[in-house]
Amino acid sequence: MPNYPKSLTSAHKRFLKGLFPDEDCLLSPEQMAPFSADASLERAMPWGVVRPQSREQIEELLKWAQTERMPIYGRARGTGRVGNAVPSLGGLVVSMLKMNRVLEVDEYDAIAVTQPGVITSDLQNICAEKKMFYPPDPASVRISTIGGNVSTCAGGLKAVKYGVTRDWVLGLEAVLPGGKVMRSGGRSHKDVVGLDLTRLFVGANGKLGLITEITVKLIPLPEASASVLVGFSDLQSSLEGAKAVFQSGVLPAACEFMDRITLEAVRQGEEEIPLADSAEAALLFKLDGTEEGVNAEVRQLVKALEPQKPVSIETGRGVEEERIWTVRRGISPAAFRIKPTKLAEDISVPRSRVAEAVERAHKIGESHDLTVLCFGHLGDGNIHVNIMHDGENSDEVKRAHIAKNEVFRLAVELGGTISGEHGTGLTKAYFVPEQLPALNVQIMNSIKSIFDPQNIMNPGKGW
Amino acid sequence: MPNYPKSLTSAHKRFLKGLFPDEDCLLSPEQMAPFSADASLERAMPWGVVRPQSREQIEELLKWAQTERMPIYGRARGTGRVGNAVPSLGGLVVSMLKMNRVLEVDEYDAIAVTQPGVITSDLQNICAEKKMFYPPDPASVRISTIGGNVSTCAGGLKAVKYGVTRDWVLGLEAVLPGGKVMRSGGRSHKDVVGLDLTRLFVGANGKLGLITEITVKLIPLPEASASVLVGFSDLQSSLEGAKAVFQSGVLPAACEFMDRITLEAVRQGEEEIPLADSAEAALLFKLDGTEEGVNAEVRQLVKALEPQKPVSIETGRGVEEERIWTVRRGISPAAFRIKPTKLAEDISVPRSRVAEAVERAHKIGESHDLTVLCFGHLGDGNIHVNIMHDGENSDEVKRAHIAKNEVFRLAVELGGTISGEHGTGLTKAYFVPEQLPALNVQIMNSIKSIFDPQNIMNPGKGW
Repeated sequence: MPNYPKSLTSAHKRFLKGLFPDEDCLLSPEQMAPFSADASLERAMPWGVVRPQSREQIEELLKWAQTERMPIYGRARGTGRVGNAVPSLGGLVVSMLKMNRVLEVDEYDAIAVTQPGVITSDLQNICAEKKMFYPPDPASVRISTIGGNVSTCAGGLKAVKYGVTRDWVLGLEAVLPGGKVMRSGGRSHKDVVGLDLTRLFVGANGKLGLITEITVKLIPLPEASASVLVGFSDLQSSLEGAKAVFQSGVLPAACEFMDRITLEAVRQGEEEIPLADSAEAALLFKLDGTEEGVNAEVRQLVKALEPQKPVSIETGRGVEEERIWTVRRGISPAAFRIKPTKLAEDISVPRSRVAEAVERAHKIGESHDLTVLCFGHLGDGNIHVNIMHDGENSDEVKRAHIAKNEVFRLAVELGGTISGEHGTGLTKAYFVPEQLPALNVQIMNSIKSIFDPQNIMNPGKGW
Repeated sequence: MPNYPKSLTSAHKRFLKGLFPDEDCLLSPEQMAPFSADASLERAMPWGVVRPQSREQIEELLKWAQTERMPIYGRARGTGRVGNAVPSLGGLVVSMLKMNRVLEVDEYDAIAVTQPGVITSDLQNICAEKKMFYPPDPASVRISTIGGNVSTCAGGLKAVKYGVTRDWVLGLEAVLPGGKVMRSGGRSHKDVVGLDLTRLFVGANGKLGLITEITVKLIPLPEASASVLVGFSDLQSSLEGAKAVFQSGVLPAACEFMDRITLEAVRQGEEEIPLADSAEAALLFKLDGTEEGVNAEVRQLVKALEPQKPVSIETGRGVEEERIWTVRRGISPAAFRIKPTKLAEDISVPRSRVAEAVERAHKIGESHDLTVLCFGHLGDGNIHVNIMHDGENSDEVKRAHIAKNEVFRLAVELGGTISGEHGTGLTKAYFVPEQLPALNVQIMNSIKSIFDPQNIMNPGKGW
C-alpha cells in the first residue's frame, strides 16, 4: 500500500474549501453519504467530496493531490455495478456532475463536443434535434453520463451493430495527476498520428486521469426502426434462431435474449407482455435504417426464424416499439421478485458458446441452491448472469460468491471474459489475474505509472 | 542515437542463418534490395532480411535482438507510403509474408483468426464464402496485408460507415523485444478487463513488438450494394451535395470526391468514364445493405442531391458497380500524366472544412508553380493531396517539399491531422511536434520504453 494520508488535515480542508467554494466542497458525513456507494453492494465513506465547475479547478486539484499523495476517485452518476466509483482506500471523491454542458453538436463535421457530466440520453436527444445519432446505449443510458460511459467503455444493447463507446470517441481532454492537461485526437474522423492515447483512456476507469472534455463521432439518425419480440419453446431453439438471423445477412441493431427463469420473473409483474405464455426463451431484436430497409429486414428475420418454429412473434414500429421493450426493461425489477439481493455479473463469451454458458450457469446456481437468471446481449455474447440471493442470509451470501467465482471461471474456460461491459472495479479485481497473463498486468501497471506515478487515481480498482 | 551495432558481425550472421534456414535468411545485396523500400520515395539497405515461419522463431529473434541492440523493422508487402518499413538506421528487416495462413473463420462467433501475412482481400474473400464480412478496405486492400493494416490502423473507403481497422480488432498475439509473447483480447466482442493493450498495438507501426496473430470481428455480408457516380459543375456544389446526403439520413458505405484537376487527369486516359464532360467535381457513393434498403437509399440520395443540380448521375448495381469505380481507380495512374513524381499526402480535416482545405491546397500548389490534385474520402474528411512534380528536377523537388509543409500546416490550422491513414513513418515524423503537444510525445515515448527499452523496434519512425 503506498504512503497515503490517513485522513484530511485541517490544511487539506482549507485548501479544498478555497478551491471549491460553498456547496462545491462537502465535508460532513450527511453530505458525503450519497457519494460513498454506486450500484454495486460496495460502500466506503470518502474524506471529502468536491464538485468542480471548470477544468482549471481540476488542474489545481490534481497538482495538489499529487504532492499530497491524496487518493482521487472520479465519479459521475454512480450507476456502475462493480464499485469503481467507491472511495475504498479513503481520499477525495471528485463529482463531475457540474461539468454538464454539451459544448457543440456539429452536424456537418458529424461530431459532438461535450463535458463529461452530461447524461448520455440527453446528449443523444440534443444530437437527434439536428438529425444526428450517437449510437452507444448502455442499459443505463437515461441515468448514466457520457463521462462515465467513456471511462468504463460502456457497451449496451446496440453494440452488435454499432460497437461500443470506444468506437465513437474521437478526442479527449484530460487532466493528469500533477495537473497537466492532455489533449488527444480531435474532430477528424481519421487520425493515425502517434500512439492512440485517446482509446487508452477509454475504459481506463479513471485510473490515468480525469476526463474533462470528450469529442464523439456521430452518424445520420436512421429514419426508421422496428422491434421484434419472438418466443421459443426452449433456449436451444432461440439460440439457433439467432444464428439463422445472422446467417441470413441481417445485422440487427440489437439482439437480446432472455432465458426461462428471466421470463418467469417478468411474467409475475403487472404489465402484460406481448409474448406467448408457452415461450420458455425469447429473443428481442431491434432493426434500424431506412423505412424500406427496415421492412425488408423484418421480413428476412421472420423468415430466417421459421425453422425454429417460434411460438409467438410480435413486431412493433415507432411508438409501438415501446410496448415490445417492456419485457426487457422489466427484468431488473422482476429479478427482485425472486430474491432481495443480486450479484449482477456480465460475462462475455464467444457467441457460439452462449448456450453452453447459460446451461452451465443454471447448473452452477442449482448446485448452490440459488436461482440464476441469464439474459442480455446475445448478439455480442455478453450475458448478464444474475445470481439471486438474500443479502441478510450469510450462508446464501457465501454460496452466491462461490457461484460467482464459478461463473467467472466458466467464462474464462469458454474463451470469454469476466466482464463485457461493467469492468472489474472492486468486485472483480481479485479475479483478473486468473484471466489476464501476468505480463499484461505488469504492462498495465507500467503504463499507469507513466500517468500516475504516485498511484493516486482510483487506487485499488480494476486489476 | 542509441548504441546500435554498425553492421552484422559474423557471429550475428551465424545466429541468423541457424535460426532462419536457407532462403529464410537473405544477406546478399541483390536478395535484400526489394526489402529496402516501400511505396514512398524512401530507401535504405538492410543488413539482413529474415523470413520467419513461426512465432517461436520470432521469440528467439527478439530475445537475441534485445541483447544485441539490433534494430528490427517488421514488414509485409511494403505498400506503405511514408517509409515506415524502410530500415533507415540499418539492422534487420523481418518479413512477415511467410506467416500467411487464415487460421479460422467462425461464422457463429463472427470472428476470424489470422496470421499477419495474409492479403486483406484474400481474408475478405475467405470470409465471404461463409457469408461474413470484414469491412475495412484501404485502397491497397488487394495488395496489402492484414498485419500491415493492423500495424498502421489502415483506413480506407468504407470508414465513413464501418470505421477503421482499429474498430475491428478484437485480439492480438505479439512478440515483444526480449522474446516475451503478449496475448490480449480474444474472441469476445465485448471485453473491458484491464487497459486496452490491443488497440494500443493497432497503429503502433511495429514500434512496440511484432504482431503474430490477429482476431478480427466480422458481420454478416450485406446482400446487396450499389454505387452512384455524380458529376457537378463545381466543387462547392459537390460538397453541398454531400452535406445534403448525410442530412437526409443516408449513411453511405463510401463517399469519395474528386476535384477538377483530378478529373482532368483521369479523362486523359483511354477508359471511358461514366461522367458528364462538363463535370468539374464528382462524388462517388457506395451503399450496401438489403436489396430493398439499398434501393431506398439510392432514391433518397438522388433526391437529396437535386438542389445542387448535378450534371450527371450514373448508378451501378452488382457487377455494374465495377464500371462506376473505374474513375476512382484511375486516379493513381492518371496523376502521373501530369508529372512523373508525386508527394502523396493524406491530411484529414473536420468534414465541414474540406472545401476550404481543397481550395487552399490548390492555392499552395499555384504559389509554388506545382499542380496539386485533391481527392479521397470526403465522408471522413480524409483528403488525398497529391503534389505532382519532377523528381529529377531539384528545384521542383524543393518546391514540392515546401508545399507539403504548407499543406501540413493547413491541416493542423483547420483542426485536422497530417495523417488520416498513412501514418507518419519517416516522411512526416519531423512534423509531428507541430501537431502533437510535447506532453503527448513524452507519454508516447514512455509507453514505447515499457515495451521496447532498447528502442530496437522500428527506430526513427513515427514521431
